[in-house]
Amino acid sequence: MVVESHTQFLQIGSPAAPIRLRDGGLLPGVTLAYETWGELNADRTNAIFLFHALSGSHHAVGRNPGIEGVGDLWQPEMHEGWWEAMIGPGKAIDTEKYFVICANYLGGCYGSTGPSSVNPETGKPWGSSFPAVAAADQVEVFKDLIDHFGIQTLHAVIGPSVGGLVALTFATRFAERVQNVIIIASGFKTTVLNRLILFEQILAIENDPHFNGGDYYDGQGPLYGLVLARMISHKTFVHLDAIERRARQDVVQPDDVLAWYRVRDQFQSYMLHQGKKFVRRFDANTYLRIIDLWSRYDATQEGDAETPADLFERSRLAGQRWLVFSIDSDFCFYPEEQAELVGHLEEAKLDVMHITVHSDKGHDSFLLEPDLYTPHISWVLGK
Amino acid sequence: MVVESHTQFLQIGSPAAPIRLRDGGLLPGVTLAYETWGELNADRTNAIFLFHALSGSHHAVGRNPGIEGVGDLWQPEMHEGWWEAMIGPGKAIDTEKYFVICANYLGGCYGSTGPSSVNPETGKPWGSSFPAVAAADQVEVFKDLIDHFGIQTLHAVIGPSVGGLVALTFATRFAERVQNVIIIASGFKTTVLNRLILFEQILAIENDPHFNGGDYYDGQGPLYGLVLARMISHKTFVHLDAIERRARQDVVQPDDVLAWYRVRDQFQSYMLHQGKKFVRRFDANTYLRIIDLWSRYDATQEGDAETPADLFERSRLAGQRWLVFSIDSDFCFYPEEQAELVGHLEEAKLDVMHITVHSDKGHDSFLLEPDLYTPHISWVLGK
Repeated sequence: MVVESHTQFLQIGSPAAPIRLRDGGLLPGVTLAYETWGELNADRTNAIFLFHALSGSHHAVGRNPGIEGVGDLWQPEMHEGWWEAMIGPGKAIDTEKYFVICANYLGGCYGSTGPSSVNPETGKPWGSSFPAVAAADQVEVFKDLIDHFGIQTLHAVIGPSVGGLVALTFATRFAERVQNVIIIASGFKTTVLNRLILFEQILAIENDPHFNGGDYYDGQGPLYGLVLARMISHKTFVHLDAIERRARQDVVQPDDVLAWYRVRDQFQSYMLHQGKKFVRRFDANTYLRIIDLWSRYDATQEGDAETPADLFERSRLAGQRWLVFSIDSDFCFYPEEQAELVGHLEEAKLDVMHITVHSDKGHDSFLLEPDLYTPHISWVLGK
Repeated sequence: MVVESHTQFLQIGSPAAPIRLRDGGLLPGVTLAYETWGELNADRTNAIFLFHALSGSHHAVGRNPGIEGVGDLWQPEMHEGWWEAMIGPGKAIDTEKYFVICANYLGGCYGSTGPSSVNPETGKPWGSSFPAVAAADQVEVFKDLIDHFGIQTLHAVIGPSVGGLVALTFATRFAERVQNVIIIASGFKTTVLNRLILFEQILAIENDPHFNGGDYYDGQGPLYGLVLARMISHKTFVHLDAIERRARQDVVQPDDVLAWYRVRDQFQSYMLHQGKKFVRRFDANTYLRIIDLWSRYDATQEGDAETPADLFERSRLAGQRWLVFSIDSDFCFYPEEQAELVGHLEEAKLDVMHITVHSDKGHDSFLLEPDLYTPHISWVLGK
């Protein structure tokens, strides 16, 4: 039985006490959208902070039919939680035992303040003027959220994919406030290949005839630019054989926007269809903000440390335990990236367990195959 | 000593006898631009037809300071032949022994009739109205070129990369007119990954605000769309470490067109720089035509055969010898693609030799490391 889950909001900062971002950006107070599941215990020691992926939301569990202010982007496909299979009574993250929090990123489009939010000073959407937000900025506002709950120490932070980058930075910037760190299919420092693929996506969006520098909220927006960006990233999320299999079941829909080129096969039609579905539920400016966060991610810098050894010395002093998952068929965050992270953790003499799951589903395995992750996560959380 | 090499032209067809293309397109006579090296012997049995890569030209050897009608696209970096290291007296393709022909593709931008050529019926560039051209169409007009020289049987066809697809189709459509077939880092049938990456590039160009359906010759053209397309493909041509090494020597050039996004590092700057260099020397409509040819390539279909076995039965009857090269670090045409081709050749009981060269240079190895290819090519041609 899927239960209802509703989004809550927390105001952080104000025009008098604005949020200062690492790149110099200034936000006169922000809203964080979040959901929670389970009950916070009396000691407030059973909280787990979960961080979502690039195009995900804070709605990980249950049924949420609508979020205030989000409008049409909250498409029916979003109503079900994205990690239903992992969070709940008796599941990997057991809501009988733990209090689970997930928040939409700053710059997001699902309720937290982002480029599509209204700038109170102008009365118009932020658009192009919404600043760049680093992983370190995200965890600073998320810390305010755990303060709001009066939580001194999180039992765990958990992050798959881009969420793993944010979890890592939370765990190293606030080491004494995190006991366990679970990182799934993520990285330590963005690779050349990541940066290249992300830069392609930036260009795809910014060169769209309707992007208008990011100020497109009274027009149609950079639809095909975002479709292309999603196509570029989509091939790194899933196994190519799966794309081809699904494409075979699709009907070719000739498309008017491709000016000269005639869509030739089911495969192209399927990829376009996937991209167009995504565009209905995501904001291009938010996509750019999160991609930017990822593209320049370097855990050492985000933690204001000199070296990885310095960074993880904090974790060692706090007695953190780490669990790192790799997916052998992952073409988004390659297994080498987790190996780099684990190498640094081991050098810092941290308690770390590194598990590679074997899957033919690629990066998306973490969404699709809960059994591969459940035993270790459950065991580490219960230790 | 680099000798001068000049482009020659052949007219094929006429308004009264137009060129009919497989997709139904009609061209009222076309011009082929080509160059030759070495001397055709009295028997006309020593000719080799070389096919160029996606963004290459027919100018493979010597110094060519200009091509009639090509204008500014003939940038200084094109003046030197692209396969200088492989063709010449005493080289892999020995011009003391062989007469070598290379022609610009139909739809090209280096002298053969293409989208930037003037349509005699309208007095304007073809642009969007220039039809799609398949590999089978290319070899039909190239056959007219060897007829023009009175060549009955080519000693060899040779093609690296996309040129390998055209060589394969020449060798199977006109099996009795080809003795040896040398295929380097190419394929038999476009893979899902190829098609995905090519479709991304099509979208990148067609969604550019200045593409105008392909009718952009009186405007600035889809510059950033083509830059992005080139970036997407560039990462498959070279080894990523090499990109990073070269990028480190580059200076960051902040760029005005990226509207919201600030170019953050040398790597992004380098990729943009490479893309912009390419745009100066290539036409986006031509790029789309060749990409389309590649994207739908299936040797069996291009040869109007029922099965690969049917296709290569012609080659077997003609007594052809095949030499197929793979590059172990190739991310453009993966070694699996040549293995597929070789598998079909072996099933058809053809005389085939399959060589994998080990290189850290990726797909571009065929341009950069002549010693890896020279002994086998020289040996097969001289057999």
